Amino acid sequence: MEEKKKLLKEKLAELSDLIYTAAVLDWDQQVNMPSGGAEERGNQLGTLARIIQEKATAPELGKLLDDLLPYADSLDPDSDDARIIKVNRKDFEKATHVPPAFVEKNAQATTTAQQSWREARQKSDFAIFRPDLEKVMDLRKEYISFFPSVDHPYDALLDDFEPGMKTADVKVIFASLRPKQVELIHAIAAKPQVDDSFLHQPFDEKKQWAFGVDVITKFGYDWNRGRQDKAPHPFTTDFGVNDVRITTRVTPDFLNSMLLGTMHECGHALYGLGAAPEMERTGLAGGASFAVHESQSRMWENLVGRSLPFWEHFYPRLQEVFPQLKEVKLDKFYKGLNMVQPSFIRVEADEATYNMHIMLRLEVEIALMEGKLAAKDLPDYWNTKMQEYLGITPPNDAKGVLQDVHWSGGMVGYFSTYALGNLISAQLWEKINQDLPDLSGQISAGKFDGLLGWLREKIHRHGRKFEPQELVQKVTGSKIDPAPYVRYLTKKYSEIYGL
Amino acid sequence: MEEKKKLLKEKLAELSDLIYTAAVLDWDQQVNMPSGGAEERGNQLGTLARIIQEKATAPELGKLLDDLLPYADSLDPDSDDARIIKVNRKDFEKATHVPPAFVEKNAQATTTAQQSWREARQKSDFAIFRPDLEKVMDLRKEYISFFPSVDHPYDALLDDFEPGMKTADVKVIFASLRPKQVELIHAIAAKPQVDDSFLHQPFDEKKQWAFGVDVITKFGYDWNRGRQDKAPHPFTTDFGVNDVRITTRVTPDFLNSMLLGTMHECGHALYGLGAAPEMERTGLAGGASFAVHESQSRMWENLVGRSLPFWEHFYPRLQEVFPQLKEVKLDKFYKGLNMVQPSFIRVEADEATYNMHIMLRLEVEIALMEGKLAAKDLPDYWNTKMQEYLGITPPNDAKGVLQDVHWSGGMVGYFSTYALGNLISAQLWEKINQDLPDLSGQISAGKFDGLLGWLREKIHRHGRKFEPQELVQKVTGSKIDPAPYVRYLTKKYSEIYGL
Repeated sequence: MEEKKKLLKEKLAELSDLIYTAAVLDWDQQVNMPSGGAEERGNQLGTLARIIQEKATAPELGKLLDDLLPYADSLDPDSDDARIIKVNRKDFEKATHVPPAFVEKNAQATTTAQQSWREARQKSDFAIFRPDLEKVMDLRKEYISFFPSVDHPYDALLDDFEPGMKTADVKVIFASLRPKQVELIHAIAAKPQVDDSFLHQPFDEKKQWAFGVDVITKFGYDWNRGRQDKAPHPFTTDFGVNDVRITTRVTPDFLNSMLLGTMHECGHALYGLGAAPEMERTGLAGGASFAVHESQSRMWENLVGRSLPFWEHFYPRLQEVFPQLKEVKLDKFYKGLNMVQPSFIRVEADEATYNMHIMLRLEVEIALMEGKLAAKDLPDYWNTKMQEYLGITPPNDAKGVLQDVHWSGGMVGYFSTYALGNLISAQLWEKINQDLPDLSGQISAGKFDGLLGWLREKIHRHGRKFEPQELVQKVTGSKIDPAPYVRYLTKKYSEIYGL
Repeated sequence: MEEKKKLLKEKLAELSDLIYTAAVLDWDQQVNMPSGGAEERGNQLGTLARIIQEKATAPELGKLLDDLLPYADSLDPDSDDARIIKVNRKDFEKATHVPPAFVEKNAQATTTAQQSWREARQKSDFAIFRPDLEKVMDLRKEYISFFPSVDHPYDALLDDFEPGMKTADVKVIFASLRPKQVELIHAIAAKPQVDDSFLHQPFDEKKQWAFGVDVITKFGYDWNRGRQDKAPHPFTTDFGVNDVRITTRVTPDFLNSMLLGTMHECGHALYGLGAAPEMERTGLAGGASFAVHESQSRMWENLVGRSLPFWEHFYPRLQEVFPQLKEVKLDKFYKGLNMVQPSFIRVEADEATYNMHIMLRLEVEIALMEGKLAAKDLPDYWNTKMQEYLGITPPNDAKGVLQDVHWSGGMVGYFSTYALGNLISAQLWEKINQDLPDLSGQISAGKFDGLLGWLREKIHRHGRKFEPQELVQKVTGSKIDPAPYVRYLTKKYSEIYGL
């Protein structure tokens, strides 16, 4: 058994090394690569993907995992070894369910669809994208057919992003959340708008960068185990548990992109850097799911970075760096940073309206997979829902149904993780405040080690050991629950807008 | 046959993708990686090296190459297909001669030796390094034993850097070169020294960088297919034929590191970028050998970048950027830049003394492999030879026998390529001047497309198709010959020092 365990760990280490290798190539492509290198980089990533797929589905790996199952069952079910065997066994089974020919066909279709999506968005013409979108969605249905035992077809897609999560659960969560968020947005809309004009003025890019660096250094981002670069689309990437890098975007005449983006990516990075050494090279480093990852990034961005205690500490420093804010009082700054304003573009949405963008997309995806919605009817469906949820109608497809890259890449099941991440962040936040009653005081003193220590202990160190629902249950005592997020939003905006 | 050719090219493409992948990881490690990532990066590079070794020695690859040999023999021997098959067949045979157990043992020994070399150099104490050096040299002898058919033991080592090159040839070349260089150095030493003090003063680092960028842009370095970053030890790396990156080092109070270093690395990069598209992903992109590569870097650095015509064009611009040079006349600048001064450190040596450093190392290596010199006697041997060749004796081991990293890494056979590169550069230069009689005029007008076009046509596009001696013969009509280099040095320094 020891021999087999050793052999398994070698195979998992090799697989993990190759996945991190692909991440380095991808990061370099987005951050450094000269344009001429694109085709060759595509070849390199293609070769790596093929080798990774071969190794991830190798019969010897499956045999080892099967042989070790009785051993795993004999252990404490929460022990590292039990989880390493079981999580990898599930990964293996999922990977072997999908025929290599499908993987190739899907890769080709999504490459084409991404091109036509780009053109369609540029010309704001859904018709250009429609045939490829239909193909991609048909392929998603074919993918679902490889998992005949799921309760709901959409479960097969969801599971790729949120292991163990069911469509039925997601429906219940969002059915409870939807009316409360709509009500809150309407209540806010009935009140006088706050002013955020001072956020839209020139801010020196180098000073912005340095301020962001200051903030995340205080958060506890370890520069010996990470770095920050510029990238047009900010992202975080793990090359192991000791090299987790972030990227950010600096806008010369708007503070939020750098400020909130840097804190957001730092939240992801702190998660990646916090995995226990035992998780290294086992396939279990990284996050429990996309939603749990998002709960970390959104927590540092919103629950910390858009909070009054945070700015009690950092605002004097920000005013020093940017004297143009000298006349803007803290209270006004805080309200402006938290302005609620229904808008067309998801990635620019505020905390109160963000989830509505997600719910719309989730409904589209489920309806498409259930066969209740046809791709051709998407623009109308989209615009009707936007009017219903946010009271605005996109003026064109580019600002409507064509705004996100996800579907063109075959990523269906992804969007809900953004909203679930928000819910989890607030659910954890209530628990953290119980465990650390002085949390607000620590934050307003610029101290984050209590918070980070809590997250490391309860969330980060486990990596992928637990499924998201299981992890949230273990930590908070209940499964993912929208109530804390609704409470959080209601309290925050009642104060800001005087509801 | 077509089927086998296709299959071979697929296998070679995969191998090439993996080698470039390792290069990306290595570049990132030297340029960007935070220190915490070192161990994991080591794992990733180790895994990649193992997979590359497996694929490079896979029996199916050998069988394909054997099966295709009669086909290769039926073709024009200089055709791409014939060379692709033959060069890869030689690579395969060499790789399979070396047992995997040896590769591992050697990797461990050199890792340890590099550590003890670092400590020894820091403490300037050869005794610390000696036992590990002895092990590394014994392993080199064991490596040689895997190639029992060589004429001279050192041939087995040389061939890894200079395919097809024989120790006998190298001995003849250097025996002819040695007395002439020694004579020249003595003649120079008898003349009044030139002044280079103006090169040793503060130069703004950003302006240095920008000037270097200007120069290599004029050389023809394509920024859409490359980039330049800072690194403590400058190097050039290929990620394909359309992404070849350089690094440079900027010293705040000495112009030469940036200036000559940038041109040197650009010379390497132009070679990598010039391979014909047919060489892509065949294992034949890149350079014919280390010496031919060095001939390109040294040509742009020295024959171009230290020449009077070059500075006739660039010096007014340099004076504009650095007004502290306003009072230094062009002639004085040119002489200072070409000052000959015997010194202890190879990498800081001028053109006239550089090859002496190499000859010393080459003699050490051959004597060690022939069993005529023991590692324990190295410091004395080194110091005696330094006195004989350059008239100076290192004050300590750090400035003597411990200065280079190569031997600790098991790189024996490498040094001669630096000197051979110098010789080839001058030999090509004579030929280029015959073919482009106006070359000096072009350079003094800041025009380099004639030179680059010639190099692309005669050298770059062939990649690794031809062995170095074969390539030099094809292009110049004779094998590697020291006479042009001696003529070049003698003419240049006669003018500068009034010999």
